[in-house]
Amino acid sequence: MLDAVLQHLTDDSPHALDRLCQFLSIPSVSTDPAYAADVARAAQWVADTLRDCGLDVAVHRTAGHPIVVGRSPDHAASANSPRVLFYGHYDVQPPDPVELWTTPPFEPTVRDGALFARGASDDKGQIACFFEALRAWKRVHGRLPVPVTALIEGEEECGSIQLQPFVRAHRDALRADIVVVSDTGMWEGPDGRSVAITYGLRGLLYFDVQLHHADRDVHSGVYGGVAANPATTLAAVLGRLFDDRHRVTIPGFYDDLLPISPDERRRWGELGFDEALFLRSVGFTQPFGESGYSTLERRWARPSCDVNGLYGGYGGPGAKTIIPSFAGAKVSFRLAPNQSPAKIAEAFKRWLHSQDVYGCRWKITELGGADPVVVSTDSPYVAAATRAIQRTSGRPPVLIREGATIPIVADFKKTLGVDSLLIGFGLSDDRIHAPNEKFNLDCFALGCRTHAALLEELGAAANR
Amino acid sequence: MLDAVLQHLTDDSPHALDRLCQFLSIPSVSTDPAYAADVARAAQWVADTLRDCGLDVAVHRTAGHPIVVGRSPDHAASANSPRVLFYGHYDVQPPDPVELWTTPPFEPTVRDGALFARGASDDKGQIACFFEALRAWKRVHGRLPVPVTALIEGEEECGSIQLQPFVRAHRDALRADIVVVSDTGMWEGPDGRSVAITYGLRGLLYFDVQLHHADRDVHSGVYGGVAANPATTLAAVLGRLFDDRHRVTIPGFYDDLLPISPDERRRWGELGFDEALFLRSVGFTQPFGESGYSTLERRWARPSCDVNGLYGGYGGPGAKTIIPSFAGAKVSFRLAPNQSPAKIAEAFKRWLHSQDVYGCRWKITELGGADPVVVSTDSPYVAAATRAIQRTSGRPPVLIREGATIPIVADFKKTLGVDSLLIGFGLSDDRIHAPNEKFNLDCFALGCRTHAALLEELGAAANR
Repeated sequence: MLDAVLQHLTDDSPHALDRLCQFLSIPSVSTDPAYAADVARAAQWVADTLRDCGLDVAVHRTAGHPIVVGRSPDHAASANSPRVLFYGHYDVQPPDPVELWTTPPFEPTVRDGALFARGASDDKGQIACFFEALRAWKRVHGRLPVPVTALIEGEEECGSIQLQPFVRAHRDALRADIVVVSDTGMWEGPDGRSVAITYGLRGLLYFDVQLHHADRDVHSGVYGGVAANPATTLAAVLGRLFDDRHRVTIPGFYDDLLPISPDERRRWGELGFDEALFLRSVGFTQPFGESGYSTLERRWARPSCDVNGLYGGYGGPGAKTIIPSFAGAKVSFRLAPNQSPAKIAEAFKRWLHSQDVYGCRWKITELGGADPVVVSTDSPYVAAATRAIQRTSGRPPVLIREGATIPIVADFKKTLGVDSLLIGFGLSDDRIHAPNEKFNLDCFALGCRTHAALLEELGAAANR
Repeated sequence: MLDAVLQHLTDDSPHALDRLCQFLSIPSVSTDPAYAADVARAAQWVADTLRDCGLDVAVHRTAGHPIVVGRSPDHAASANSPRVLFYGHYDVQPPDPVELWTTPPFEPTVRDGALFARGASDDKGQIACFFEALRAWKRVHGRLPVPVTALIEGEEECGSIQLQPFVRAHRDALRADIVVVSDTGMWEGPDGRSVAITYGLRGLLYFDVQLHHADRDVHSGVYGGVAANPATTLAAVLGRLFDDRHRVTIPGFYDDLLPISPDERRRWGELGFDEALFLRSVGFTQPFGESGYSTLERRWARPSCDVNGLYGGYGGPGAKTIIPSFAGAKVSFRLAPNQSPAKIAEAFKRWLHSQDVYGCRWKITELGGADPVVVSTDSPYVAAATRAIQRTSGRPPVLIREGATIPIVADFKKTLGVDSLLIGFGLSDDRIHAPNEKFNLDCFALGCRTHAALLEELGAAANR
């Protein structure tokens, strides 16, 4: 049955590209309130698309952006088929700095075998693969090989604030046997690309940290050297976040971490990871980080801490001789399996308050956290995915972890008791979160085909 | 002879106020090209006024705004009289935010014993004091007691770019024995206000400092912990600018500094400086700075280093999970007498390049420097000013320094070889650079009288 579906996907690919371009032209930037109407429009686009694939669809209002749930009727597949919950997000990162885009971020453009637009790879292009697989099954066979629930949210890029309570409130409607997520990348090894099954993710903890002092910007001649400058003081505090082994100095930060197993360390060593290429591809000149770990280990299984932005005082052209009334930083942590965001958040705030800031005052805003996750690779679902991937890509999947965060994956486990299969089609040069984001057309095609095959294999898995 | 001049100033004061109001009603905002014609009109007003006081006047065009030079004929005073070069500026700060003004910024209004208008204190009201003194001498005695050159520029509020080359090009025409500047304030001590002679100023050195790494902003999940983050690294470097005694760590930074003499330390201690009020008036909660010095010493005679602004990466609302491709800071130094801006600039750049930045690259831009200045208080000119101030204010002047910078004062010393007397009549609540700027009418009257007396005393000084 799959052959006809795959043939249909090939024949229909120009229309699939048109549909994706339509989706990408909606600037659904979730973090900026100015785009709220566009975000709602993107939710509607997802709802219409899922309905067109034969799903019963509801667009749920939330205190934030809408959550779209589509559900295939229960009679659509055999009674003992597992139900697949597909998760993705229709929101995108802000396009800034817009002037660095070769073509406008919300005018999708094909060149050099890729589609360029904000969200092309993260995550609109990837969820479009799944939509196209549903559509093809529906068009060719009139039904899906396995019952499916699609849960598509609009706040992934701003912390998925609404999603966790939503999943908790709708746990019965969302009940499933396995979750499929397409928001990760392929493995690019020395012998070419392989589809990857990502079995571990880091968590996240994000803060806005401001330090305030004078009630206005004051003249740096009149006041320079006589009271604490919040910009200088903030910089010094941030500098103290790391020791000379480049480990985070917050007490207890490393206490709960799962160690890397000897088996994992061996397997990761055999992946042929090209560290130099990985770093050089974005202009990094040398590896750097926590002492005693390789780049892959630092990225997949060790926590990190980053200043994501600095602001406050004068940042324009030329000179302005002020002591700013405040300065701020975005500070975030990637947490490795078994760190707890709540515990680390408390430890970080306690650490900030323990720093001497000479009369300045903290204003600390927590902007969301997410648990890290690691799942078993020894399951019938991983076996089904392995067969599907072998079928469409001609080679077996590679088992990897990821340094980034998909917060809901931990929530699915906690709330629904269900593991996730993370199978994505992005490439490392897709420039997600950066100007000129793109999604390769061959990755798009492989994604559509693999999701179509995966639906069949997951349906078959229960009957083996 | 002075008595008759002072009497004339008293009798003529309503007309003096009218003239100042006329001057203040010209919106000579130098930094905004939209006001260029008004700036030119203000220059013309100054020229007409100086001519009316008997000076030969030239309005010099420059690449920026005009510079007005007025010169009394050499035969106007006795041959061995010193020539006085008076410096001031006719341009003003922008009036924004206009909506916070009680009366419009360019409609001068008297209330509560003060004249409210943009430029009332900085610097039109203060240079008007000098103009009125010239006028009174001319009206009453037909001549000035000392030869005078007036140099009035129109770019002080936007960097005085044209002034230094102008002074160098006209060094013969501007030759003088002493410079008088009225752009500073009175001393407000526990026993009331005193006219101050400001005999020291700090210099300035200003940098834009950027640290670059990846060639784009990259995903903090994918790259967090594996290469140096320029925002984190810049913060750490800025933090290392100070040691635990809050002294600047740049090697050689303090080498050339003039120490504070025991006599100065004693005199400053007797000034009754209200440190708590000074800090509290802008919302600072506690004194802080280089160990071993008082607030007044830190402000007047010790250098400072400030981060004037931080930028780079994401600084908007909410979270954006990037490692920025670069981060920047405005970093400036107030230099104390005898530090050299060129030498400190070299030392700072060398220090930055000596920091380990793990593959990041510096982009350092120098945005100007100005020498610090300190003049001897043991001179016939200071003695003359002391007598004049005692005569008109009924109390001796207070000898103070200032933490801010007036770059041209050092240039007068370097280019013309001449010291400056800084005698101003502003008050700390004049709100210069802010809405509702004002100049007290009694300060205006005292300024006119003191300049009249100062002209006589300076003339007499050479004959003692």
